[in-house]
Amino acid sequence: MTIKAVVFDAYGTLYDIQSVAAVTEQEFPGHGEVITQVWRIKQLEYTWLRSLMGTYRDFAAVTRESLAYTLDCLGLSCGDDVFQRIFDKYLHLDLYPEAISALESLRGRKLAILSNGSPAMLGALTKNTGLDRVLDDVISVDAAKVFKPNPAAYGLAEARLGVKPNEMLFVSSNPWDAAGAKSFGFNVAWIERVPRAAMAAELATPGPLAPITMFKALRTQMDHLGFAPDHRIGSLSELARVIAA
Amino acid sequence: MTIKAVVFDAYGTLYDIQSVAAVTEQEFPGHGEVITQVWRIKQLEYTWLRSLMGTYRDFAAVTRESLAYTLDCLGLSCGDDVFQRIFDKYLHLDLYPEAISALESLRGRKLAILSNGSPAMLGALTKNTGLDRVLDDVISVDAAKVFKPNPAAYGLAEARLGVKPNEMLFVSSNPWDAAGAKSFGFNVAWIERVPRAAMAAELATPGPLAPITMFKALRTQMDHLGFAPDHRIGSLSELARVIAA
Repeated sequence: MTIKAVVFDAYGTLYDIQSVAAVTEQEFPGHGEVITQVWRIKQLEYTWLRSLMGTYRDFAAVTRESLAYTLDCLGLSCGDDVFQRIFDKYLHLDLYPEAISALESLRGRKLAILSNGSPAMLGALTKNTGLDRVLDDVISVDAAKVFKPNPAAYGLAEARLGVKPNEMLFVSSNPWDAAGAKSFGFNVAWIERVPRAAMAAELATPGPLAPITMFKALRTQMDHLGFAPDHRIGSLSELARVIAA
Repeated sequence: MTIKAVVFDAYGTLYDIQSVAAVTEQEFPGHGEVITQVWRIKQLEYTWLRSLMGTYRDFAAVTRESLAYTLDCLGLSCGDDVFQRIFDKYLHLDLYPEAISALESLRGRKLAILSNGSPAMLGALTKNTGLDRVLDDVISVDAAKVFKPNPAAYGLAEARLGVKPNEMLFVSSNPWDAAGAKSFGFNVAWIERVPRAAMAAELATPGPLAPITMFKALRTQMDHLGFAPDHRIGSLSELARVIAA
């Protein structure tokens, strides 16, 4: 099987969403970690719920709604300027350190992002981090008005790149996204950033949990949704080897 | 507005899903609480994800898949008999103490359940707890092959009861369910079981969190999805007053 295109999820896969913790902690000292985790968990929930309800709003709106929920839940409030400053971190997320070199090692194939992010968010993010120079395309689910893992969202990559699903390698660290992409028909590489044994040891200690532990328990282990990824890798650097094999 | 039918969500609204903790703790001492919370959070995630992926399986399957995920995540394993014993608690959940008397106080209107549960699970649960004697109908989303909050799931109540959405009062403690029902067009009473101020105080204490606290942070505060319930009540006992008003 020849892989003609490699398509990446953005948030959590190329970009470290945990890097928002620097800003949330700065604005709400002592609460940065819990804000970061609840915000991310609810952000995804809202993409799924709005898609299911048939009341799509773009990822910028959902990101704001989930941040508002999170602060509300914690009994915290802030002015528009602080709220905007926290939101803006989504336009300046840290790249995983290996991202640029890993993408450069895959040149010769079409390289693209397929993300829940809105076109404006993804445009700013890839420009701010220099990723626009190594990508051939940045595809937002916004064109389908539904979020991943709906098949219509994955179908955008096929249509935009002109590459069949079975000639595409889709890369995501998000387990539900890997399962959804596999269900659609892509070849899928899942980045397992938190090894299962480490996760189990961290979670199985009785008692209270760090918010990051609960996040990892919910969103970093492979989901039982009936679709297993074709490849499990530890980082983006392993992709060249996967494709060569 | 005359309310001709009152339709109840089951899990978390009439039945206390936290009551599974007794069984999970018995089978996995020291881990009951974290299993209970992760299981419930993932169970709902899987209903949404499968609905979005277009790969519906019934709630019994999803409940098993999410339990398997949870044990896997914790590095725990068990035989089929123990697994089945934990699952079976879903057929014997505790009713909220006020449930029977609250439903009896509403007689004269059609009373029904509209639940994600499979027909077999709901049949066993309502029989085991005596609720079958006060309900006129038990409606499972299984007939629509999609879970709440998809409009097709809520539409089943309208079709089965022959009552228009605006003559129906839908009752749920699940914020996303209340939002989804409101989006569909029902009158909605949301049961706020964890008052916001109490939640905020519990969550805003810096440091590790009890698993139940994370659950409450994610699933007991009103979601920011653009749809507010018509009524916020503290328990099922307040429904008679809401309808009389």
